[in-house]
Amino acid sequence: MVNNYDFDCELLTIGNELLIGRTVNTNSTWISKRITTVGGVVTRCVTILDELTDISQAIGEALARRPRWLILCGGLGPTFDDKTMEGLADALGRPLEVNKEVVRVIDRKYSKMQMRGLISKVEMTPARIKMATLPEGSLPLSNPIGTAPGVLLSLQHTLVFALPGVPSEMKRIFLKWIEPVIQKEIGDVHRTSKTLLVRGVLESTLAPLLDDILSNSDSVYIKSHPKGIENGRSKLEIEIATSFSIASEAEERVTRISDRLSRMIDEIGGKVSVVGDEK
Amino acid sequence: MVNNYDFDCELLTIGNELLIGRTVNTNSTWISKRITTVGGVVTRCVTILDELTDISQAIGEALARRPRWLILCGGLGPTFDDKTMEGLADALGRPLEVNKEVVRVIDRKYSKMQMRGLISKVEMTPARIKMATLPEGSLPLSNPIGTAPGVLLSLQHTLVFALPGVPSEMKRIFLKWIEPVIQKEIGDVHRTSKTLLVRGVLESTLAPLLDDILSNSDSVYIKSHPKGIENGRSKLEIEIATSFSIASEAEERVTRISDRLSRMIDEIGGKVSVVGDEK
Repeated sequence: MVNNYDFDCELLTIGNELLIGRTVNTNSTWISKRITTVGGVVTRCVTILDELTDISQAIGEALARRPRWLILCGGLGPTFDDKTMEGLADALGRPLEVNKEVVRVIDRKYSKMQMRGLISKVEMTPARIKMATLPEGSLPLSNPIGTAPGVLLSLQHTLVFALPGVPSEMKRIFLKWIEPVIQKEIGDVHRTSKTLLVRGVLESTLAPLLDDILSNSDSVYIKSHPKGIENGRSKLEIEIATSFSIASEAEERVTRISDRLSRMIDEIGGKVSVVGDEK
Repeated sequence: MVNNYDFDCELLTIGNELLIGRTVNTNSTWISKRITTVGGVVTRCVTILDELTDISQAIGEALARRPRWLILCGGLGPTFDDKTMEGLADALGRPLEVNKEVVRVIDRKYSKMQMRGLISKVEMTPARIKMATLPEGSLPLSNPIGTAPGVLLSLQHTLVFALPGVPSEMKRIFLKWIEPVIQKEIGDVHRTSKTLLVRGVLESTLAPLLDDILSNSDSVYIKSHPKGIENGRSKLEIEIATSFSIASEAEERVTRISDRLSRMIDEIGGKVSVVGDEK
């Protein structure tokens, strides 16, 4: 199923550590927040094991949904379980090629490590050549703080990006190479959000009020998050957000909804305060 | 593609908050860790928006892969954006039914809230009936600390569980209703893992050693996690883990590999220490 968003993005995070509960997937949270902030919509995040068939299959499924962007994260390193490039090549039916420019870059990185005494000799071992082996048509994205580069592959419907799983490297490459591309394509979009803390009203009591508000405001995102009971009173947060090309209009939309909702909650005996305000 | 694991589990976490970067998906990490600990394998975690077609489609895709267990998390509440039950019914082609027993349970919960002064009157509004509306054939799983129950649906190849997204409620229902079922089916399995901290060896230097060890030990999981450079020396963690029906044998397997790897790293000038030991 192809969705209706113009600026949709899918994430594919790869790594056994995510599915054995060893590592919390903060990479996907961070990327999602950045994409949302510049006006894109992350429609799906799939997390899979370091298995070639799983990677290839998940990439194929994502591309069939034709997102504008597909971001792969993890599995670019030198060890046996880094299989993202092989999976990508397999999914696209393209051969893997050793990228000579990347080999030179990696060789220079190791030479510097040797000079700093980190390694005794510079050898382009198969494990190191692996990090320079990319699917045909790949554009390497330089990694200023690690060895394996990121990758960009431009397909008919989708730009595919691949990022290392090490958070510091992932962030640097994203901010340098991916966010500017996405931001340019989306253009000027301002996202504004406001979070209300509501006490004394149950989520099920609030539900019809939210229905009513939403039926009259299609461009605004509203979501309630129950936060349990505190001092015998129900507590929940409501996020109201919108994106628009004019910042003042985005803010006005959120404020209008937030004021209206606050009045409605007040009328049924709830207590509202603003806890978060993001522009 | 159906995988080869006997005790495989897929997760489907549902909620816009996860894909706008507002909430870190710690639910999937927690569930993955529990499943891994009792000897199961989480093969995939898919995160989607609160959209009916996305939920229905993702459930259909997961069921086609025939995991032993499929755990849905989120979207069971009373508001307009809680669509998991509708999506599940849609994916299975089953009607939704109001479960009278669940209505009674929810009614009792609201009566207690009224007695505690949380609400002024007990009304089974459409929003509250919604939490008792489940796909035909569902078995409700009692929720001791929240309103919406969990759900179990037994299909031909797969047991489908649905859990609320509020972490405290999710954990209570999982531990009471899901883990015992999974554990009983898997039987007695002991997972042992050991994490080595390695200094002074690059991941790319280590790669061929890991290849060598893995080619001689198919039942052991090994994964290296680069941790950057510290005081001019490369630092990484290596996790070695296995699961086996006899605890002492599982420990012996991990110790054997860990000792062998430590010797190999020692020979190439690296420094090894044990940082984690889980039995």
